[in-house]
Amino acid sequence: MTKKKFVYLFRESDGKNKALFGGKGANLAEMTALGMPVPPGFTITTEACSQYYADGAKLSQTIIDEVFENIAILEKEAGKKFGDDLNPFLVSVRSGAPVSMPGMMDTILNLGLTDISVKALAKLTDNPRFAYDCYRRFIQMYSDVVIGLSKEFFETVIDAKKKAKGIVLDTDLTAEDLQELIESYKEFFLKSKGYEFPQDPKVQLVGAIEAVFRSWDNPRAISYRRMKNIASNCGTAVNVQSMVFGNMGPTSGTGVAFTRNPATGEKKLYGEYLMNAQGEDVVAGIRTPSSIDHLKKDNREAYDQFVKIASTLENYFHDMQDMEFTIERGKLYMLQTRSGKRTAQAAINIAIDLVKEGLCTKEAAILSIEPSQLDDLLHPTFDTKALAKAKALAEGLPASPGAASGKIAFSAEEAVERAKAGESVILVRLETAAEDIEGMNAAKGILTARGGLTSHAAVVARGMGKCCVSGCKKLTIDAEARTVSIADKTFTENDVISLDGSSGKIYPGVIQTVEPNITGNFGTVMSWANELRTLKVRANADTPHDAKVARSFGAEGIGLCRSEHMFFDEARIPVIREMIVSKTAEQRAVALSKLLIMQREDFIGIYKEMKGYPVTIRFLDPPLHEFLPKEHDEIVALAADMKISTEELQATIDQLHEANPMLGHRGCRLSVTFPEIAEMQTRAVIEAADIVNKEGYNVKAEIMIPLVGDVKELAFVKKTVVETAKKVMAERNTTIAYSVGTMIEVPRAALTAQEIAQEAEFFSFGTNDLTQMTFGFSRDDADKYLSAYYKNKILEFDPFVRLDQVGVGTLIKLACEKGRSVNKDLKLGICGEHGGDPSTVEFCHNIGLNYVSCSPFRVPIAIMAAAQAALRSKKI
Amino acid sequence: MTKKKFVYLFRESDGKNKALFGGKGANLAEMTALGMPVPPGFTITTEACSQYYADGAKLSQTIIDEVFENIAILEKEAGKKFGDDLNPFLVSVRSGAPVSMPGMMDTILNLGLTDISVKALAKLTDNPRFAYDCYRRFIQMYSDVVIGLSKEFFETVIDAKKKAKGIVLDTDLTAEDLQELIESYKEFFLKSKGYEFPQDPKVQLVGAIEAVFRSWDNPRAISYRRMKNIASNCGTAVNVQSMVFGNMGPTSGTGVAFTRNPATGEKKLYGEYLMNAQGEDVVAGIRTPSSIDHLKKDNREAYDQFVKIASTLENYFHDMQDMEFTIERGKLYMLQTRSGKRTAQAAINIAIDLVKEGLCTKEAAILSIEPSQLDDLLHPTFDTKALAKAKALAEGLPASPGAASGKIAFSAEEAVERAKAGESVILVRLETAAEDIEGMNAAKGILTARGGLTSHAAVVARGMGKCCVSGCKKLTIDAEARTVSIADKTFTENDVISLDGSSGKIYPGVIQTVEPNITGNFGTVMSWANELRTLKVRANADTPHDAKVARSFGAEGIGLCRSEHMFFDEARIPVIREMIVSKTAEQRAVALSKLLIMQREDFIGIYKEMKGYPVTIRFLDPPLHEFLPKEHDEIVALAADMKISTEELQATIDQLHEANPMLGHRGCRLSVTFPEIAEMQTRAVIEAADIVNKEGYNVKAEIMIPLVGDVKELAFVKKTVVETAKKVMAERNTTIAYSVGTMIEVPRAALTAQEIAQEAEFFSFGTNDLTQMTFGFSRDDADKYLSAYYKNKILEFDPFVRLDQVGVGTLIKLACEKGRSVNKDLKLGICGEHGGDPSTVEFCHNIGLNYVSCSPFRVPIAIMAAAQAALRSKKI
Repeated sequence: MTKKKFVYLFRESDGKNKALFGGKGANLAEMTALGMPVPPGFTITTEACSQYYADGAKLSQTIIDEVFENIAILEKEAGKKFGDDLNPFLVSVRSGAPVSMPGMMDTILNLGLTDISVKALAKLTDNPRFAYDCYRRFIQMYSDVVIGLSKEFFETVIDAKKKAKGIVLDTDLTAEDLQELIESYKEFFLKSKGYEFPQDPKVQLVGAIEAVFRSWDNPRAISYRRMKNIASNCGTAVNVQSMVFGNMGPTSGTGVAFTRNPATGEKKLYGEYLMNAQGEDVVAGIRTPSSIDHLKKDNREAYDQFVKIASTLENYFHDMQDMEFTIERGKLYMLQTRSGKRTAQAAINIAIDLVKEGLCTKEAAILSIEPSQLDDLLHPTFDTKALAKAKALAEGLPASPGAASGKIAFSAEEAVERAKAGESVILVRLETAAEDIEGMNAAKGILTARGGLTSHAAVVARGMGKCCVSGCKKLTIDAEARTVSIADKTFTENDVISLDGSSGKIYPGVIQTVEPNITGNFGTVMSWANELRTLKVRANADTPHDAKVARSFGAEGIGLCRSEHMFFDEARIPVIREMIVSKTAEQRAVALSKLLIMQREDFIGIYKEMKGYPVTIRFLDPPLHEFLPKEHDEIVALAADMKISTEELQATIDQLHEANPMLGHRGCRLSVTFPEIAEMQTRAVIEAADIVNKEGYNVKAEIMIPLVGDVKELAFVKKTVVETAKKVMAERNTTIAYSVGTMIEVPRAALTAQEIAQEAEFFSFGTNDLTQMTFGFSRDDADKYLSAYYKNKILEFDPFVRLDQVGVGTLIKLACEKGRSVNKDLKLGICGEHGGDPSTVEFCHNIGLNYVSCSPFRVPIAIMAAAQAALRSKKI
Repeated sequence: MTKKKFVYLFRESDGKNKALFGGKGANLAEMTALGMPVPPGFTITTEACSQYYADGAKLSQTIIDEVFENIAILEKEAGKKFGDDLNPFLVSVRSGAPVSMPGMMDTILNLGLTDISVKALAKLTDNPRFAYDCYRRFIQMYSDVVIGLSKEFFETVIDAKKKAKGIVLDTDLTAEDLQELIESYKEFFLKSKGYEFPQDPKVQLVGAIEAVFRSWDNPRAISYRRMKNIASNCGTAVNVQSMVFGNMGPTSGTGVAFTRNPATGEKKLYGEYLMNAQGEDVVAGIRTPSSIDHLKKDNREAYDQFVKIASTLENYFHDMQDMEFTIERGKLYMLQTRSGKRTAQAAINIAIDLVKEGLCTKEAAILSIEPSQLDDLLHPTFDTKALAKAKALAEGLPASPGAASGKIAFSAEEAVERAKAGESVILVRLETAAEDIEGMNAAKGILTARGGLTSHAAVVARGMGKCCVSGCKKLTIDAEARTVSIADKTFTENDVISLDGSSGKIYPGVIQTVEPNITGNFGTVMSWANELRTLKVRANADTPHDAKVARSFGAEGIGLCRSEHMFFDEARIPVIREMIVSKTAEQRAVALSKLLIMQREDFIGIYKEMKGYPVTIRFLDPPLHEFLPKEHDEIVALAADMKISTEELQATIDQLHEANPMLGHRGCRLSVTFPEIAEMQTRAVIEAADIVNKEGYNVKAEIMIPLVGDVKELAFVKKTVVETAKKVMAERNTTIAYSVGTMIEVPRAALTAQEIAQEAEFFSFGTNDLTQMTFGFSRDDADKYLSAYYKNKILEFDPFVRLDQVGVGTLIKLACEKGRSVNKDLKLGICGEHGGDPSTVEFCHNIGLNYVSCSPFRVPIAIMAAAQAALRSKKI
């Protein structure tokens, strides 16, 4: 057995194997192979990361030895030496996971600097300020990332120094200032840790590598992966690379650029750079960078070389690229390339352009679109008429398109809390940082005072499909007073502002929005997706309005019409309450006859919108107490309304109280105890169908009995349905096409599907409840422990968002097999909220469901995911 | 294909095939084959019953034709004719299910009597009184059973007639009186139904057969089957038999007898009969019958013949028999024989005797004992000392042994309600009827004024293992005044009386009871059962006392020690509350250190009682709010006790509130969020083991982590356990044998058992919660709809009592297969309440579990069931 290799020079690695080398490492290998100017280095594989965790979060001697064998090669080639007093070798250490997680993990630059080698660097570059700035940065970064010392101390010290000297920018600090800072830093380190800042570059390197591996499991990385559906077991690679310096003086610089505009998709090099800067300076937003076009003037040769490299990379990868570069004393180096994050609109436009340009096929173009991103195109934009009347307060950079109105939140935590409480908020910040992502996710939009189009706020907002305006110079924030000034107006946390992410403009108050629609390039890619998919996509819709939206987004039917949702309406709830408090069958019959009329009208409206597409109507599901008030005042008021005593109403409420309503008297259990409800609903379904059919439609009604756990429950309720339907059809002398099926949402139903399928014409997996019962998680209560589960990596994803394919999925597969084994025509679908989640859609395609059903706004996402699933399953 | 045969003459049927012919039909065939005096007749099979239901509760013409072909044969052999005006043919129509359900279904006697044939019968027998009494009874029975007319009218008319004539007994009514009654009956029938009482015997017969089939699904039969775990899909057979008459005058009679004493097992013919009586008269308890011994005087020849037949039958069936006979004008006829119901004590004594007598093998003897009946032997009897001091009020018949004290309930409904409310009640009735069984089940004991040892009350009470004293002459009941007089003392519903079912004595007030033990014959059969079984039996025990009881009943370990049950103790709950309201980790540590001391003491006690048998300790399971008060007053008091503000305590309670606590923050989820609890519990387990081992024991502790749904949950908690255990063992410089496993009670755990088994050393199926989640039934709420489920035959059994083998059982089998596939040494057990249910024990044996665990008092039942399962599985 040959020894496992954990470390590969860039020239040795396989650029196609991102799983082993991570995205960054693989692409560095590709660029190296393409002969591009990549500073030499090596990648420590993701397998080393797994090994690190398997060894109890410790780097084994085997791996350490292999690392230093490769360091020796690099040292020899560079003619430099780690920690040397003449020609010191310096490296950067960066994470690089198989799936890109920008800003989520840690990076350490200038590693190898020590009290000795810093002097050598100063001498060698004849630039002591540069050398001490590098060392200062390194101590700061290393103390934070590797040792875990708070950043605050370092920032306080540097701010004090600048204040004392009356300067604003770090670049105005002299070499002497920096040397003094370094001394303070080192003292602080010694005092905090009880030992000196490490002066052995080898110790520094091992610490840095371990820190990167460790950062794979830091809370924000875990949270990012959960948000983005990235598996947590793949680990990260580490890239160790010879340093090149963008901060070596006015002929040096560093920048990032996209081969196309990531906001619009426009085919034009798009990027920013900063001269005399290093690493995070460009994206941190502290200094506002210049456009990449300016590089033409600063360094024509480097600019031309970069343009050529950008074009080569795009052609090579057949996709828009996001690149990082550094210019050291006039010479260009490529530090990274990757497929660029883009807005949904840009994704679509680029896909169409790439196909037109012959750079990729329709299939590849479809696969390049992240389905969940389409969500961004399905949300409202400002109404043009309303917008014409509105007067902008100020303008920032159009960092991420979309339209949003909301009250002002001053911090990420605040945004999360207020959003949870139901408020629409705009997160307003000087600039954003990685720890803000949950707040950005919770906010309707993001506004920052600092930062360009590639700032943290802009990049993350685009990834999230959030509207964002960045770098608004006229914005000042007084966090203490909790006020925001935009131009000459002041706002508090209770004031609403509106952001237009496409124009960068900021408005006071709310502006009316308009619904999106599927036209132009969006329409084109959706039509491609429709051609490619085999899985049908339906919508969950309870009202004619929802049905209409669903159709406009391409839904091919309604997979879930919650018949009771109509009863929660203010005008209707009194009638259902009347039914609930009925003392006799006669009283109940009167209330039901009123409900019949309402329910029939609803169905008529829905049938008409669906124009012959199937409509699955789920019979009454919630426990009856959900329709009754809980607070004493409301009970008193309702009793008066209903002309019964408060005691009587309270008695009914008490009698209906349940210890665990999720597992209580609901679903088909209601139809067993009150068959007259099922009769009324059947009558409404059939009568409405007859009325609509007479207008020339061809209604396909599917009656769905919820919460079935045993075939006899279904048989019992089905009997009521069939007998009533027969009766109604006879009364009206008509025939209506309808079918009867069930929701599979109780584990026992899945386990006994071979019995249930003998009575059911269709199964629709109700994955919300199925997930609750299979895990034993109450959705209403799981918050109390799920955060601990995420933190401890017990769960990687919220199982109510992404279907748990291992557990719940096993039940679903079992039910499909058992069901089809006795009823080969059994129609199979899913109607839980998972129906709009791309990974779940792929699962549904792979196990052979007929359709997924999701909320109307997620229909295009499901369509795209279904097309991708079809393409991927063909590939295999 | 040959036509299916639905009707068999007794001489044609296969007496071994009870599934087809029912118990009664099969045994009538056996007796016929043995040449005993059985009135000729035929059996309509259980398949005809299924056909009847499949045809929409209608008897098909095919079956009707076959019935009358057989009637023709019987008519020819008897030389009589249906409805004849000279020599009419009369039959009885009785149900006979494969499993005996005494009194649950319907019987019709004297069928074939019409206005014409009754005259012929009067003439033929020269006994008009007899003939009209038969006709009167027939109209009454037929109207009730077949037509569904209320019994009340008939009883009122007959009572009025007796009153008018100043007589007490029915037998004092003259032929003329009876003729008048018949006229009233027929008028009432015509008025109620709009048509005449049927005068065509063929119509009568078809109606009667349909009524018997229909009675299979009457509410009391459904309820009986649920109580007795009898499947509802097998249906009943119908036996049509030529009538013989016990009411043909003073030389006729009817009776029932057992080959041995069904209360004690004593080998002595035991029974009762009534001269000049028919059918139900003996068991109805209206007239008190004579002992079978008296028959020697009344009719020596019939007595001797009967004794011989009884002995033959017992030898033939190798079991104690319960027989019905009729003497018609001095000649004996056998109407039925079956294995006799007996008390648990009798069952054991008979089993031992039969083996001694060489009538059956040990294996057959073990199979003859109904495991759940052993329960009766495991309940207290009156303390002899206390009994010696008590003065009996009166004495009745010792109808069913046992000891019971309780307040007086006057009706079955009242008994059910008051028992539900937590009262111990004694049901006191003039006599009992089939509709009283739920009340009898709910009562601690039954006392009746009328009826013998074979009365309804006695038979049913013995079947239920309830203490019963019947036929107490000194008892009078004033239902209106709600008082009971026993001898010269009067009692109200609030007075307690005590019954000794073994002596028949009734005492005022409560008498102290003593615990049972396993000695004598009981000990012998248990030792046989222990030899035969392979499945281990453990007990669920939370305290040293329970552990001791469990050991005394033969438990081979503790399968479930609920570690939190100790905390509900009044002295301890303040400490757990202190832990819950802790604001800091330090406060919590203080509370936990107090709990540690208590918990360690508990474990020491339990380990000692178990003397080296394994002890499975389940870690904290219930949601924390269960430990906090719910009512405002209690909250105020507790806050004062805990020296915190009411608001603070209320806030903690509100924060812990859950919508669905069953699916909430409990089980291993608590150990994830508060690992310090698991640490404390591990420390208690290991420290206690070390202390007990130092006294020379050899503790086998099994730590069970509850509510696991994913292997990572188990791995997380197991890490805490293993690290703490290591630490404690190092501190004490010792090694303790312990294992870590999990409860499989969440469906997802069963579905992913192949993953969980890699971390678990054992699985214990927690079938209570597994049933709740698999069905989606909350045990606390299911009452609201389960009665409708039973009524509509959607469910046949309470799935919380008898394991649902189809649904939940599938999950369990899946988990066993998946678990053992990766871990062949995985120990498998069950610890839900189902562990003491015989059918579940058999299921557990068959799927290869290592043990079942049940409440201490059910250990002998589980042992017996395990032995029977082993025997039956060998047979197959």
